[in-house]
Amino acid sequence: MFPFRVIDQVSVKQLLDMKHVIELVERAYTLKEQKEASLFPMVFHEFAPGKADMDIKSGHLTGANIFGLKLVSWFGENPAKDLPALVGFVMVLDSDTGVPKGMMSGEPVTLMRTGAAGGIGAKYFARPESENLLLVGCGHLAAYEIMATLITMKHIKKVTVYNANSYEKAATFCATAKEKLQDMFLAPYQDDQELYRTLLDRIEIEYVATDDIRQATEEADIIITATPSHKPIIMKEWVKPGTHFSCIGADMAGKQEIDENLFTTARVFVDDVTQAINVGETKVAVQKGLISKEDIVAEIGSVILGQTPGRLSDQDITIYDSTGIALQDLITADYILKKAEEKGVGTIAQL
Amino acid sequence: MFPFRVIDQVSVKQLLDMKHVIELVERAYTLKEQKEASLFPMVFHEFAPGKADMDIKSGHLTGANIFGLKLVSWFGENPAKDLPALVGFVMVLDSDTGVPKGMMSGEPVTLMRTGAAGGIGAKYFARPESENLLLVGCGHLAAYEIMATLITMKHIKKVTVYNANSYEKAATFCATAKEKLQDMFLAPYQDDQELYRTLLDRIEIEYVATDDIRQATEEADIIITATPSHKPIIMKEWVKPGTHFSCIGADMAGKQEIDENLFTTARVFVDDVTQAINVGETKVAVQKGLISKEDIVAEIGSVILGQTPGRLSDQDITIYDSTGIALQDLITADYILKKAEEKGVGTIAQL
Repeated sequence: MFPFRVIDQVSVKQLLDMKHVIELVERAYTLKEQKEASLFPMVFHEFAPGKADMDIKSGHLTGANIFGLKLVSWFGENPAKDLPALVGFVMVLDSDTGVPKGMMSGEPVTLMRTGAAGGIGAKYFARPESENLLLVGCGHLAAYEIMATLITMKHIKKVTVYNANSYEKAATFCATAKEKLQDMFLAPYQDDQELYRTLLDRIEIEYVATDDIRQATEEADIIITATPSHKPIIMKEWVKPGTHFSCIGADMAGKQEIDENLFTTARVFVDDVTQAINVGETKVAVQKGLISKEDIVAEIGSVILGQTPGRLSDQDITIYDSTGIALQDLITADYILKKAEEKGVGTIAQL
Repeated sequence: MFPFRVIDQVSVKQLLDMKHVIELVERAYTLKEQKEASLFPMVFHEFAPGKADMDIKSGHLTGANIFGLKLVSWFGENPAKDLPALVGFVMVLDSDTGVPKGMMSGEPVTLMRTGAAGGIGAKYFARPESENLLLVGCGHLAAYEIMATLITMKHIKKVTVYNANSYEKAATFCATAKEKLQDMFLAPYQDDQELYRTLLDRIEIEYVATDDIRQATEEADIIITATPSHKPIIMKEWVKPGTHFSCIGADMAGKQEIDENLFTTARVFVDDVTQAINVGETKVAVQKGLISKEDIVAEIGSVILGQTPGRLSDQDITIYDSTGIALQDLITADYILKKAEEKGVGTIAQL
């Protein structure tokens, strides 16, 4: 029999902080580039089109001696049943023996690593002096994308939030954004007064809802899209030179957030070429023949390692297509397990 | 947070009995045929060729309102580390909400449902009066395949066991086979004296090791192959008319147990056409163009439902290629969860 640790959602949240998750996700990207990590094929199933689906992402981190999977379901009608729409778990196993090491709630892992991905995209591809962040979508990911970007980008002065279906939702989000970010993300840094003050300063900026996506796009330095949209929200002709996009929402065939014609002029980077072409924001542009697979400049790991330049000039439009890869989850989960063991958090169950 | 039940290996073993698992696996096959169940694509990864691999099988049982996955690893060097070579788990989730229902040790589920598959193959395709069972391979599956076949076939008088690498291993297995079968499988029937006596009678037969696979093949009515072989062990010219094969071992590209030329004369049945062609015993025959996909008579569910005849005459050679499908695991796991809940077995953990 095999004892293994099970860690619930509240404990997972308490064990993670965004600064650390950003470092972990960068490490996952570079391990992938260095062939010390591999992705297994993704499994996707739609129970009811547009209403309920699930995916299983799995892979192997050779360096960390672990492999595992994350299963995440999305059931759109769950909130009406007082259940979260996203439910999932991550399972981590020892890649020397196949023995389970532990499992944990998948939701906080997903939210944190997905936020980190958006911020890392900005860090490596946006102009360093970027001041205006536009967030498209204000669902459960919004606060995570903003916090990660405020950590990676020092000069953000204004966050504009656009929600295609409801201006009010964006306005409500902005009204309490500072408090929300402080509550959700700053507690882990209370013992490090300097860092705490720095991050509090980063949060103390302007949050503005908009219903004019064209104007917001024209003003933005960095645009993060994190919606379940199935058609483009941002058109090419609105985008000024120098803009960076972190495209987060598209993770299955059919989803799209930005005008596919943007891909013809942008420098395009992805987390994983195969996933980007099959299920990412890049899919439509490749499918329509606007770009080919070879036009993708590189996977982000190569840029982080300094092997491929990111942006070449202040005039470049850059796109980072983050489809979300299992290695982000596994490396984060491995970290959580180590912290949980140190602190004695979680339940030991037997398999 | 979501409470869910975790059931360890010992408890899973205690909750299962072979007669019931045979019924469950038959039900999984028929649900698949009736489109009340679907398989998701299988994920397979080899950590080190011939030394360590893992697969993730997943699917959806519409009828039972569950979906889920089984991850099973095989690490060939584990026994030298005092660990079992096969390690795995099954996770079951609610297909109306995505909420986890429970998880359990995958090893006993796999052994029982794989044994059941071999016995079900005999039940639907072998001649009903079959007396001689030849088991090729005497690894961890051997007792399970024998017990299932003794349950489904009333007239078995002799079990011959062949092990390609070691006659001694087969001889040792046969020397204690009766006691082993009784210990491993009969306890659940102690309250039903009639059934217990019936099964004890079925076990009280001859168990003979052989090192002459040709002669054993010539004598056999039913041949079950359950080895990790990568080349044919049984040649076509040794096989007498009327023989039935349940091919259990081949579950990944490269594995093969019987002469691919047997497929040109046999009536071929499978658990899942796609898996059989991609990873099953059928793969080589199709790959070499000896048969085409259309030559597969049917999936077994169709035969169980009476929609397709199995054997047409006493002279037919029949092959049942059982690759092992997630639905067998999920339906068995769902049954275990219900029994465990009734009996209060397992640990409740939170996700």
